[in-house]
Amino acid sequence: MSTIRDVSKQAGLSIATVSRALSTPEKVSPESLKRVQAAIEKLQYRPNMLSQKFRYNSANSIVVLVPNIANLFFSTVISGIENVAQKRGFNVLLGDTRDSMQREQEFVHLVETRQADGLIQLRPYKANNSLLPKAHVTAVNASGCENTPYPTVRIDNVAAAQEVMRYLISLGHKRIGMISGLKDNPHAIDRMRGYKAALAEAGIEFDPALVTEGDFTLWSGLNASGHFSRMPTPPTALFCMNDEMAIGAIKGLKSKGFRVPEDISVTGFDDLEFAKYSDPALTTIAQPAGKIGEKAAELLFQLLDGTHEGSTEFVLPYEFVIRQSTGPAPQQQN
Amino acid sequence: MSTIRDVSKQAGLSIATVSRALSTPEKVSPESLKRVQAAIEKLQYRPNMLSQKFRYNSANSIVVLVPNIANLFFSTVISGIENVAQKRGFNVLLGDTRDSMQREQEFVHLVETRQADGLIQLRPYKANNSLLPKAHVTAVNASGCENTPYPTVRIDNVAAAQEVMRYLISLGHKRIGMISGLKDNPHAIDRMRGYKAALAEAGIEFDPALVTEGDFTLWSGLNASGHFSRMPTPPTALFCMNDEMAIGAIKGLKSKGFRVPEDISVTGFDDLEFAKYSDPALTTIAQPAGKIGEKAAELLFQLLDGTHEGSTEFVLPYEFVIRQSTGPAPQQQN
Repeated sequence: MSTIRDVSKQAGLSIATVSRALSTPEKVSPESLKRVQAAIEKLQYRPNMLSQKFRYNSANSIVVLVPNIANLFFSTVISGIENVAQKRGFNVLLGDTRDSMQREQEFVHLVETRQADGLIQLRPYKANNSLLPKAHVTAVNASGCENTPYPTVRIDNVAAAQEVMRYLISLGHKRIGMISGLKDNPHAIDRMRGYKAALAEAGIEFDPALVTEGDFTLWSGLNASGHFSRMPTPPTALFCMNDEMAIGAIKGLKSKGFRVPEDISVTGFDDLEFAKYSDPALTTIAQPAGKIGEKAAELLFQLLDGTHEGSTEFVLPYEFVIRQSTGPAPQQQN
Repeated sequence: MSTIRDVSKQAGLSIATVSRALSTPEKVSPESLKRVQAAIEKLQYRPNMLSQKFRYNSANSIVVLVPNIANLFFSTVISGIENVAQKRGFNVLLGDTRDSMQREQEFVHLVETRQADGLIQLRPYKANNSLLPKAHVTAVNASGCENTPYPTVRIDNVAAAQEVMRYLISLGHKRIGMISGLKDNPHAIDRMRGYKAALAEAGIEFDPALVTEGDFTLWSGLNASGHFSRMPTPPTALFCMNDEMAIGAIKGLKSKGFRVPEDISVTGFDDLEFAKYSDPALTTIAQPAGKIGEKAAELLFQLLDGTHEGSTEFVLPYEFVIRQSTGPAPQQQN
């Protein structure tokens, strides 16, 4: 097996120069770098796997920033990313950030220091609260929102929310409650736009009393449903911004004696596997979570390879899945 | 900033030796290694983050092998691992192996080549189908089974299954069906032992016709429930080896007109967040998934640091959570 000394001899350069070429190639003249590379090729020099990373200037790994790994939607996106990364021989470094900017910073730093090649961010972009885009950090946002100022793979959240609302309105619903995510969450903002647009086109006035805030967990959906069940005139339908909150709300409504959908229709968003198994099965927007992950990873590799051409914003199709949690508005309330 | 040349001068050794000390310390004499380390300390030499890994002989990352990242139980364990790893300043390399030995091999190789320091395996150990234990690979098995021949953090699956069965028997159930995982799955084997032990101590004969095989997915539970609902005398209770299969089975049974628990009781295993929101809410074994992940990571770091003493098998307590999916055996069938 050849050593760094052999490379030095072959290249006609000092060991120090070869060492520098391996660790900090930017500090070596292009001419020397070329000679070192030629010598390495010729001698099939393989110091060890870590050193190899220097050679090709690639860490063979990508970072995925995820606000919460124990969220089923995110883990399905990650599964899609893994699919593509493994085919490329890349490792996935998982950054479970719990929405902490400091934790995000630590993982972005891995790319800045070339311990990872690129990054996929699963947290939607907020103008006043984002480390990305950042020079020297190749990054793609997956499952984010409109107006993300770096490459992104997502669905059209506004149109999807509007489609759900149009359907509820077509069933005769006029008082349609909403369980939102946290109000400054970009997904909540986009889906709220769709909610309002559908109301406006149907000539129904927006009523802020019909909007409650959750945080995308089962528990927050259950909790928010209490607000509606206690109203003197409860809404006849509930638009929930994700499936967990819809499943939580159904649980809460049923415990208060409401029948779903006879008394109140409930819709979700995402189409988790559990949505089919909810009782009643959930009408929801099917996000292609696995495909979003795959496409984001493909785009990231194209950007890293320098082979990407054209737009860097990909809006994937969603499906509107009508199941048993929605029905006609009850007559007595119209 | 100091260079490798400065280190070489300070240590009184050639640049080649310093370079070797950084990349392949085992090829350098202990005496030279000590001098290089002292020089590095003194000069605060920091080549770059990747090179730093050589210095301390640590990659500052651990690998987690997971059969399926989109499984909620596993992602909760990973969340616990992440908690501890981040506090230690370690990255988590995620290996979504899809039960492929080849993929496992690739990730084990990262530890063998020192691109990662250690490994946590979430797939339970099978004697005839395991890469671990392996020399030079520090590894911990998390949420596995009995008789794992390397460090492990788990619950007592046999006792937990037996406790669920004793409870069903105490409610008057005698025909108790089971939806198993794949029969060679170690979790399925341990839980089957608990199922049989409880039957034996109650003097109820084991009936293989009451056992069907699933694969731990919602769909397989739904599918398996069809087997029971078509029986001339269906069982009055169903023991399911995880929550997903229990939730799928409840869906299937209800669609065939069975009432849960009035006609048939159903139990799960794991206590996913969704178990509480199932209708009826699921009686199940609460595995401390997050805690299993945390303890596994702590144990791995102790093993890496050489600070661990005593047993390397940790059996954490589980809880038996009785909710609404179980009730007395229907009278007419006794």
